[in-house]
Amino acid sequence: MTPLDTAAPDLDRLLSPRSIAMVGASNNLNSIGGLVFANLKRSFSGPLYPIHPKDSEVQGYLAYNCLQDMPQTVDLVVIAVASHAVEGVMEQAVAKGVGGIVLLSSGFAEAGAEGIALQQRIADKARAAGIRVIGPNCIGYLSIGGGVMANFALTPDEPLPPGGGVALVSQSGGFGSYLTTKGLLTGLHLGWFVSTGNELDVNIAQVLRYLVERPEVRVLLAFSETLRDPEIFIEAARRAHTLDKPMVVLKAGRSEAAAKAAMSHTASVVGAADVFDAICRQYGVIVAGSMEEMLDLGMIFQDGRRVGGNRLAIMTSSGGAGVLLADEAGMNGLAVPTFPEDEQDKMLLVLHRPFFGNVANPIDTTAAARPEAIGALLNVLASSDSVDMITTVTWARAIGAAKDLATYYQRTSKPMAVLSTDLVEPLKQAGVPTYTDPQRVAKSLAALYRHSVRKPLNEPGWQYEPTRAARARRHLQLPPGEYVLMEAQGKRLFAEYAIPLTREEWVHDLDEAVAAAERIGGKVVLKVMSYQLPHKSDVGAIRLGLQGEPEVREAYLSMLAEVRQRAPHATLDGVLVQQMVPARMELTCGLQRDPLFGPMVAIGLGGVLVEQLAQTALLRPPFDLDMARAALGQLLQGRLIQGRRGLSEHEQEQVATIMVGVGNLALELDEVEEVDVNPIRVANGLAFAADALVVLAGRSSTMEHQ
Amino acid sequence: MTPLDTAAPDLDRLLSPRSIAMVGASNNLNSIGGLVFANLKRSFSGPLYPIHPKDSEVQGYLAYNCLQDMPQTVDLVVIAVASHAVEGVMEQAVAKGVGGIVLLSSGFAEAGAEGIALQQRIADKARAAGIRVIGPNCIGYLSIGGGVMANFALTPDEPLPPGGGVALVSQSGGFGSYLTTKGLLTGLHLGWFVSTGNELDVNIAQVLRYLVERPEVRVLLAFSETLRDPEIFIEAARRAHTLDKPMVVLKAGRSEAAAKAAMSHTASVVGAADVFDAICRQYGVIVAGSMEEMLDLGMIFQDGRRVGGNRLAIMTSSGGAGVLLADEAGMNGLAVPTFPEDEQDKMLLVLHRPFFGNVANPIDTTAAARPEAIGALLNVLASSDSVDMITTVTWARAIGAAKDLATYYQRTSKPMAVLSTDLVEPLKQAGVPTYTDPQRVAKSLAALYRHSVRKPLNEPGWQYEPTRAARARRHLQLPPGEYVLMEAQGKRLFAEYAIPLTREEWVHDLDEAVAAAERIGGKVVLKVMSYQLPHKSDVGAIRLGLQGEPEVREAYLSMLAEVRQRAPHATLDGVLVQQMVPARMELTCGLQRDPLFGPMVAIGLGGVLVEQLAQTALLRPPFDLDMARAALGQLLQGRLIQGRRGLSEHEQEQVATIMVGVGNLALELDEVEEVDVNPIRVANGLAFAADALVVLAGRSSTMEHQ
Repeated sequence: MTPLDTAAPDLDRLLSPRSIAMVGASNNLNSIGGLVFANLKRSFSGPLYPIHPKDSEVQGYLAYNCLQDMPQTVDLVVIAVASHAVEGVMEQAVAKGVGGIVLLSSGFAEAGAEGIALQQRIADKARAAGIRVIGPNCIGYLSIGGGVMANFALTPDEPLPPGGGVALVSQSGGFGSYLTTKGLLTGLHLGWFVSTGNELDVNIAQVLRYLVERPEVRVLLAFSETLRDPEIFIEAARRAHTLDKPMVVLKAGRSEAAAKAAMSHTASVVGAADVFDAICRQYGVIVAGSMEEMLDLGMIFQDGRRVGGNRLAIMTSSGGAGVLLADEAGMNGLAVPTFPEDEQDKMLLVLHRPFFGNVANPIDTTAAARPEAIGALLNVLASSDSVDMITTVTWARAIGAAKDLATYYQRTSKPMAVLSTDLVEPLKQAGVPTYTDPQRVAKSLAALYRHSVRKPLNEPGWQYEPTRAARARRHLQLPPGEYVLMEAQGKRLFAEYAIPLTREEWVHDLDEAVAAAERIGGKVVLKVMSYQLPHKSDVGAIRLGLQGEPEVREAYLSMLAEVRQRAPHATLDGVLVQQMVPARMELTCGLQRDPLFGPMVAIGLGGVLVEQLAQTALLRPPFDLDMARAALGQLLQGRLIQGRRGLSEHEQEQVATIMVGVGNLALELDEVEEVDVNPIRVANGLAFAADALVVLAGRSSTMEHQ
Repeated sequence: MTPLDTAAPDLDRLLSPRSIAMVGASNNLNSIGGLVFANLKRSFSGPLYPIHPKDSEVQGYLAYNCLQDMPQTVDLVVIAVASHAVEGVMEQAVAKGVGGIVLLSSGFAEAGAEGIALQQRIADKARAAGIRVIGPNCIGYLSIGGGVMANFALTPDEPLPPGGGVALVSQSGGFGSYLTTKGLLTGLHLGWFVSTGNELDVNIAQVLRYLVERPEVRVLLAFSETLRDPEIFIEAARRAHTLDKPMVVLKAGRSEAAAKAAMSHTASVVGAADVFDAICRQYGVIVAGSMEEMLDLGMIFQDGRRVGGNRLAIMTSSGGAGVLLADEAGMNGLAVPTFPEDEQDKMLLVLHRPFFGNVANPIDTTAAARPEAIGALLNVLASSDSVDMITTVTWARAIGAAKDLATYYQRTSKPMAVLSTDLVEPLKQAGVPTYTDPQRVAKSLAALYRHSVRKPLNEPGWQYEPTRAARARRHLQLPPGEYVLMEAQGKRLFAEYAIPLTREEWVHDLDEAVAAAERIGGKVVLKVMSYQLPHKSDVGAIRLGLQGEPEVREAYLSMLAEVRQRAPHATLDGVLVQQMVPARMELTCGLQRDPLFGPMVAIGLGGVLVEQLAQTALLRPPFDLDMARAALGQLLQGRLIQGRRGLSEHEQEQVATIMVGVGNLALELDEVEEVDVNPIRVANGLAFAADALVVLAGRSSTMEHQ
């Protein structure tokens, strides 16, 4: 673990430039060069220089023939020329001392070996000169606040985005443009869009890390295909959490096929998507389940409203819509409380007579309610102490009603979401979160609630303890060619990390075994220790439930006889005499090293149904007992720690101690590739590591213990 | 069980009228009467008579002052007058011999006691006269094929729905109107919409049963709040399955709060929504997870295309969209196969050079592809034997591309779905299933695939067997005031239904017990039988794992002594000596009687984690072994029957035998209210009912055994 610089990268000259030049700017509005320059023109207020090899004017702006000819330097150079010409332009940019480059051109790493080499040369030049580069093979970026439309995500004939608190980041240019367009159609108040393309320098994580510090940004949306900078990503998540700016990620490559390909060489059942989801959960990032969900969440977060509770008022003129909204609210963790009598009376006062609707909640105004009554009801809801949030229903054709709702939205500070048959202009303009499905209303409000009441990120410190590490490493001294510790060694390693173990002794003859069994007391287990016999039961190298000298003696002898017969070539190294503890339930705890995020500790169900349940929660160390217990709380939808048969408080703490121990071991001992504590036996308020598989790095294959 | 008439109800005069009168037709276009008559006018080609107490003409049509004045009768009367006037109109309608009534008026059952009485009187009159009635408190119906716009779901200034294969049914008028409007905005080719309101006569199930037989209907969508006619609903589902017309239901009242309220008096943990979902699964009805999902499925099914396989071609100009579509396809059970070389070569032939995209699948055309190339690619896909379905991506602004896609859609017979930033007119008009989210594309195509390859509904016959029932009933003869069978009685009852039982004997003295234990062999369990001791372990009325005479003898005596001390007032009725069988896994099987759907057999996980897992599958008897095994396959996402530790073939069959036995028992013995087989012990290829709780109807409360 080397300390990393996780301060926000200095991308100011690149992303908040005060002057811009564009190489490849063109008078041909059907070319990308023409289109991007037309975009730049329409909103940038600082100096803007088109660069054109021949034309002296581009779209009404004085043009220079090359960067060198410019009278002064610029913060940002946008490049839209053929890939073979980019190296020359780079050299001029370096000479000129520019701050950043948006490289729109294609034909780099996506175009074979030559392109890869070219991209590397450009990257080297940029790094040497300290120039930050976005792209290549991207569609640029937009910053409405900064007036920078350095992109072809939108065409110049499309309206300028309204600006606002939403920042959208996407590696993919084409899909980024798709998202931008759809976001704007949806009513997203988009202030930033950045596409990073091939990421020869700046990547998604860095852009998020930069944008999270921008005061105008209120919510960050990211479409991620490949994450290149996990530490920066996590730091962006930490800052987002601290600054109360929700970060929502849509991750490509979730399907089983994709996950399989990404699976680590340890052949774990945990796919890459699970690790990513776990990281997001641990650091407070929201994982969107679909593209529309990401945009939906952008809308609910874009104006920065927060709530103290989960109580929702539902107002509709249709009973059916009310029931469906109440259903979805309930299923997503929101409450739909009945209004107290006095508030119901207030509402009845403003409604028509006779009134056949309902003001309990959901409020059913019936179709007979006049617009003034709707407004008056909304005022009652705004001042009500009984609800935290409001949702109401409208029809896309009812433009007047939409205008009223927009006005009302701006008057109240309570979060509000509207269900509409389709999106309508007045609601979009006012930034009212508007959804076309009751489920999307409820999911969005529920996400707002969860974010509002989130706890501070629990970030335990962790310190390398050299004496402990040195002690632990004594147990890792294996003969050449061996990479899997014998169980008895693994247990000694575990003991250094305070992992609760069954009482046990490693003995080397019969009398010692009998004496050990007596010291341990109760029923014991005997296990033959050998590097060659990781699967003890396959060769009879284990005996269970022994009590008293005669049983132990007989079992010891018969076990060794059986092993010598069934595994004649195995070198035996004594016998582990182990206390046999009861188990109401079995769990497993494992360590795997993710190629991207590093060590990940998994906790899951064990025992008979282990394959059937396939339930795992993951944590990235360092983490503390509370975080470990919270991870236990994720299993079986929280039911593992509930009910008569669930884990008791103290059992949870014991299991959490095992998890923390494995996490600390992972951080301290890089050479430990894999740990499997299976089973953890749980009963009567206690939990013990009853077996230990520890694998060191360096094996060419993991087949031997599969 | 009384046989029910499940033939399609004769609603022809009501829903396919050849002549219509409207009472309450008005010249005031702002009134409902004016609006509905204007709707009727614009599409009905048969005789249409406005009825108005004073005006001699309504909206250009000759008006009669009352129904009696009409020269002849009509098939359908639409009524839109105040509720107090409806009874009089009814009498005239009866006198005139009309066929059906659409009663739009409000102020009936939804408006208190008086309204309820009024509604009942109308219902009685209609039934006596054989007039079928839709409503009251509804917004009517539309049938584009029949030219009937007897509704105010749409206003006369909105375009007429295009007609088509989609039929939509909703109890709720307001929400029905909402759905209709949204469906039309979405591009649904809506041919029918029926709202049933208070359902004084015709209900949703009957409308579905009627519409499923209509040749023009290709897919049925229903929004259901209260289902009144379960047998008709199931018959509609059967017919839909047979006629290859998917039926999609969105059910209100799914949230826990709603489910709790609907929970049967047996205090089961199975909520009403679970029962409804199970019924739908059993009879092939698709349960929509959200409103938009219902409409999405309407679109994918509206033109009747089907597939033979699940292989999807993805074509896009954006790699990111392609990855996301492939992800969603994979997660929803679709395959995205790589095209064979020769097909890839065909595609490369029509693409530009140099081509930096991909034709393996997803096909990434890159943004450089010309429209002709896209068309040519689509032709390759249409004739490809490697894929069954096609999806492609477009931008809402690209109207030209949308027109091309619409044309192409009509040329191919393969199902095709389009991902677009927004819905666009050319695609809507052509009926091309178009979605704004990759997940919705994949879910819709996956539903189409599953429906296309669905198996015939397995409908085992079931015959009441009087001799078996008589034998079984001998075990149900309990003393007055007792409703819970003793375990030994329950087991004898189970034996009549071929439920696999552990070997056991019911004995009444010590020597018998010892002899029984010897006959049974191996380890045995002793259990005290008493009506007062359903919870044996609470009073020490059970002894486990006994082998050999001394153990049995000692346990028998100490058990009885303990029970006499701890439950001195209990009347004991002997001891059950039971074979103790091993259990790798424990399951439970229960019978509950749902207030709506009747007997439902539940199969779930038992044992230590029973509360934690809370996993249950439900079946409505009669069902056979195959259906029971399929239900087992639903548990733990299919993993219960997989893997080394999962249920073996023979274990599945044994468990299925228990389920079928419980189902038959439920059908044959109405007086059995509840059955709980817990645990079913499973090991070594066998499964046994190891306990039996049988509760008879008539108890005022179930508290005693909770």
